[in-house]
Amino acid sequence: MTVNQTSNRGIEVPLEAVQQAFDTLRQIKTRLAERGWFPATSGNLSVKVAYGETPVIAITASGKDKAVHTPEDFLLVDENGVPVAPTELKPSAETAVHTALYRKFSECGAVFHVHTVSNNLVSDLYGDDGAVTFTNHELIKALGHWEEGASVTVPIVLNHTHIPALAAAVERVASWDSRGVLIRNHGIYAWGEDAFSALRHLEAWEFLFEYEIKRRLLMSR
Amino acid sequence: MTVNQTSNRGIEVPLEAVQQAFDTLRQIKTRLAERGWFPATSGNLSVKVAYGETPVIAITASGKDKAVHTPEDFLLVDENGVPVAPTELKPSAETAVHTALYRKFSECGAVFHVHTVSNNLVSDLYGDDGAVTFTNHELIKALGHWEEGASVTVPIVLNHTHIPALAAAVERVASWDSRGVLIRNHGIYAWGEDAFSALRHLEAWEFLFEYEIKRRLLMSR
Amino acid sequence: MTVNQTSNRGIEVPLEAVQQAFDTLRQIKTRLAERGWFPATSGNLSVKVAYGETPVIAITASGKDKAVHTPEDFLLVDENGVPVAPTELKPSAETAVHTALYRKFSECGAVFHVHTVSNNLVSDLYGDDGAVTFTNHELIKALGHWEEGASVTVPIVLNHTHIPALAAAVERVASWDSRGVLIRNHGIYAWGEDAFSALRHLEAWEFLFEYEIKRRLLMSR
Amino acid sequence: MTVNQTSNRGIEVPLEAVQQAFDTLRQIKTRLAERGWFPATSGNLSVKVAYGETPVIAITASGKDKAVHTPEDFLLVDENGVPVAPTELKPSAETAVHTALYRKFSECGAVFHVHTVSNNLVSDLYGDDGAVTFTNHELIKALGHWEEGASVTVPIVLNHTHIPALAAAVERVASWDSRGVLIRNHGIYAWGEDAFSALRHLEAWEFLFEYEIKRRLLMSR
Repeated sequence: MTVNQTSNRGIEVPLEAVQQAFDTLRQIKTRLAERGWFPATSGNLSVKVAYGETPVIAITASGKDKAVHTPEDFLLVDENGVPVAPTELKPSAETAVHTALYRKFSECGAVFHVHTVSNNLVSDLYGDDGAVTFTNHELIKALGHWEEGASVTVPIVLNHTHIPALAAAVERVASWDSRGVLIRNHGIYAWGEDAFSALRHLEAWEFLFEYEIKRRLLMSR
Repeated sequence: MTVNQTSNRGIEVPLEAVQQAFDTLRQIKTRLAERGWFPATSGNLSVKVAYGETPVIAITASGKDKAVHTPEDFLLVDENGVPVAPTELKPSAETAVHTALYRKFSECGAVFHVHTVSNNLVSDLYGDDGAVTFTNHELIKALGHWEEGASVTVPIVLNHTHIPALAAAVERVASWDSRGVLIRNHGIYAWGEDAFSALRHLEAWEFLFEYEIKRRLLMSR
Repeated sequence: MTVNQTSNRGIEVPLEAVQQAFDTLRQIKTRLAERGWFPATSGNLSVKVAYGETPVIAITASGKDKAVHTPEDFLLVDENGVPVAPTELKPSAETAVHTALYRKFSECGAVFHVHTVSNNLVSDLYGDDGAVTFTNHELIKALGHWEEGASVTVPIVLNHTHIPALAAAVERVASWDSRGVLIRNHGIYAWGEDAFSALRHLEAWEFLFEYEIKRRLLMSR
Repeated sequence: MTVNQTSNRGIEVPLEAVQQAFDTLRQIKTRLAERGWFPATSGNLSVKVAYGETPVIAITASGKDKAVHTPEDFLLVDENGVPVAPTELKPSAETAVHTALYRKFSECGAVFHVHTVSNNLVSDLYGDDGAVTFTNHELIKALGHWEEGASVTVPIVLNHTHIPALAAAVERVASWDSRGVLIRNHGIYAWGEDAFSALRHLEAWEFLFEYEIKRRLLMSR
C-alpha cells in the first residue's frame, strides 16, 4: 500500500490515514480484550478512514482471536461492506451493521461492538420494553448530555441470525443521540464522531449497565 | 529432541510440531492464568501433536503453578497417557480424562480444563438434572450452532476422586456437539478441533455460566 | 520549564518538584486506569507541588483518556484553579472541587476522584441519609483510626452540574478525618497528606463500599 | 550482606537463601497486588530463610505499597520478630502472628496474609460459629485432602487491635491441617511447608470463600 494508493476499484486511500486507523483499532482491541469484552472471538470494531463521496472503513477481519495481533486483523471496506482491494480476508460477519450506521450518520467516525454479561442481561431484562432509560448519573455527561437531571435511552432490538435483517433493525432504531443500540442477548453497538468518543460512549453505557444490574439486585432488600 | 526424533518407544515426533504445541500451550496457559482460571494449581491443558495411528499429545505436567513458566511445564504422552520418552515429569493427574476424549473423538485437537466459581456453581445448581441447556444467546454461535433459536446443552457428571472412573464418566456423556462436559464442583472440560476452537468453546461456556448465575440472582425480583 | 522557573505570573516552581508530581500522577493514573476506575474518561487526580503562600497544584487535564499517556496529561494551577503559566490545556472540569479541598486543608497533599459502580451504588443507597458509617473493619486503620471498635463516616452530597455549587457542597461537609466525600451517583473524592496516603484512603473506602454492597445482598437470607 | 554473613547478634544467614527468599516474596507480592489482595497497603508475607535452632524469617516491611518495588520491601527477623541485624526498616505490624505460626509449626515455610472482600464477608457470616466448613469441592485436594467426600474447616477468631492478643488467638486455633485461619473482618492467614504450598492453600481458600458468598446469594431462589 502506498500513499494515496488507488485500489483496483478506483478508490484512493491515503496510506497514513490507513496506518493510523489500523493502529487505533489495534490499541482499542487490546484494551477491550484485556477486559474480556470479546468472549469467544465475538465483537468487532471499525473506524472511518476516508470521508466524502466514497467513504472507506477499516474493520476487524472475521473470526479472529482479538487478544492476538497479526497483520491480518483488519481490512478496508466501502460503505456497502465490500473490500476496496482484493484480499483473502473476510470482513467481520456483522459488517452490515457497521456500514448501516455509517450510512445513516455521515458524522460517524467509529463503531464498536462488544458482548459483556452486563449488556446481555440488561438487553434481556428490558428487551420487551424495546429500550432502557437512565437518569441521575454523572456518567450521562460522557454520553453528551450535560444538563441537570438529564436522561439517556438506549434502544433494544431483537437478535436476528440473518445479518441484513439485524442491520436494518439496528438502523431503524438508532438515533445519533443514543450513541448506542442493544441487541437482545447479543451485546451493544456504540459509536461516535471518532474512536475516542465511541470508546467513551461504550464505557459509559457499560458502567450504567453494570450499575443497573447491581441496583436491581439490591432493590427489594 | 531433534526433528522427526524417534522416541525410545519407536514413536516419531516432528520437533517443529512439538515446539508449536508447547508454544500454544504456554500462550493459553498465560492468558487463562491471568484470568484466575487455574486457582491453586488446578486445571490442565493439552493439544494433539501427531495424528494417525500413534497419536501424540502435549499436556501440562502435574502440580505446576500455571502463572510461572519453566522448561518442565509440558510433556508428551501417547493416547493412553504414557510418556513417549523417559522423563522425570509426571503428566497431569487427570491425563486420563484428556486421553479418553482424544480416543472418543479422533478429530479432537485440544482439551482444556479450568475451575471457575461460575462453572462450579452451575455444575452444582444443575448437577441433579445431569445437564444444563442454554438458548437465545448470540454466543451459542461460538459453539457451532448458527440457526435461529438454537440451543446448547452441556452434560454434568458427578466428581470422582478415582480418575479412571472420572474419565469413564466424562467419556460416557461427551458428545462432539456439546464441546464440553461439566464435572460437579470440579470445573469444565472443553475441547475442539484445534486450540483456537477449544478456547472459543471454553470462553463461550464460561460466558453463558456467568450469565446464568446472574440471571438466576435477578430472576425473582 | 527550568529549575526554579518563574512563571509569567511571578510564581516560582522548582522543576524537580514538578517532575516528581507529574511522575506520581502518571503512576497512579496508570494503576487506577487498569482497575477501570476512570470509566468514560471520568475522574481526575491532583497533587500539591508547592506549599506556602502561593500553593501550586499539578492536576489532570480535562477530558483525556486516562489509559493513554501524553505530554499533555497534566498542568499546573494555583489554589484558585488558574493555570500558573499560559497553556492550551484546560484543567479538569472539576478543578474547583480539588482547590476547595486544598484551601480548606492546608496539610492536604493529594486529591483523587474516581467513579466505581460500588461507590455510585453506596452514594445512592445512603444518599438520603447524607452519610454512611462503617465499623468493625480492620481496614478502618488505613483511614487513620487504630482504636478498638473505631468507626468511620463518609459524608454524601447531592450532585450538581454547576461545578462551583458542587465544590461548595463538598467543602461544606468535608472534614479532615473523613478523608473522603461521596457525591451522589458521581463517585468519591479522597485525599491525604500526600499521594501515598490519598491512595491508601481511596482504596480503603472502595474496599468498604464493595463489602457493603455484598453484605446488603446477603443480609436478608 | 555476604555469604554466610554473621549478623551482629551472631546469627549466620547464607546470602543465597536470603536472595531467593526476597525474590520469592517479590514475585508473590506482585501477583497478589495485581489481584487487589493488598487493599490500602494491608496484608503481609513471610518465608522462612533458615531452619534449625535459630530460625530466620524474611518478612515484608511495615506500611509499604505492595504494588511498588523498592530495596526496602523486606527484612530479616528471628522467631521472636526481632530484626537479625540493625535496620531502619520496621517489620510488618503483624509480625507476631507470623512468628507465632512458625513457632507452633516447625515445618512451616511460608505465611501469607491478605484482605479480600470475600474472606471478610465469610469471616463475618460465620464468625459467631468460630469456623466454617466446606465439603464436596475438588479444590479441597489443593488443601491436602484427597479422599472422597473430604471436608475442610477454617477457624475464625475475633479481631484484636492488640497484636500480641491477635497472635495468641490465631496460634490457639491454628492446626497444621487447616492451613489457614480467618480473622473476623480482617482477612486470612494461610501457610504451608513452602511458598508454593502456602500460595496454593491461600488460592484454594479464596476460591471456596467466593464460591460460598455466591452460593448463599443463590440459595433461597
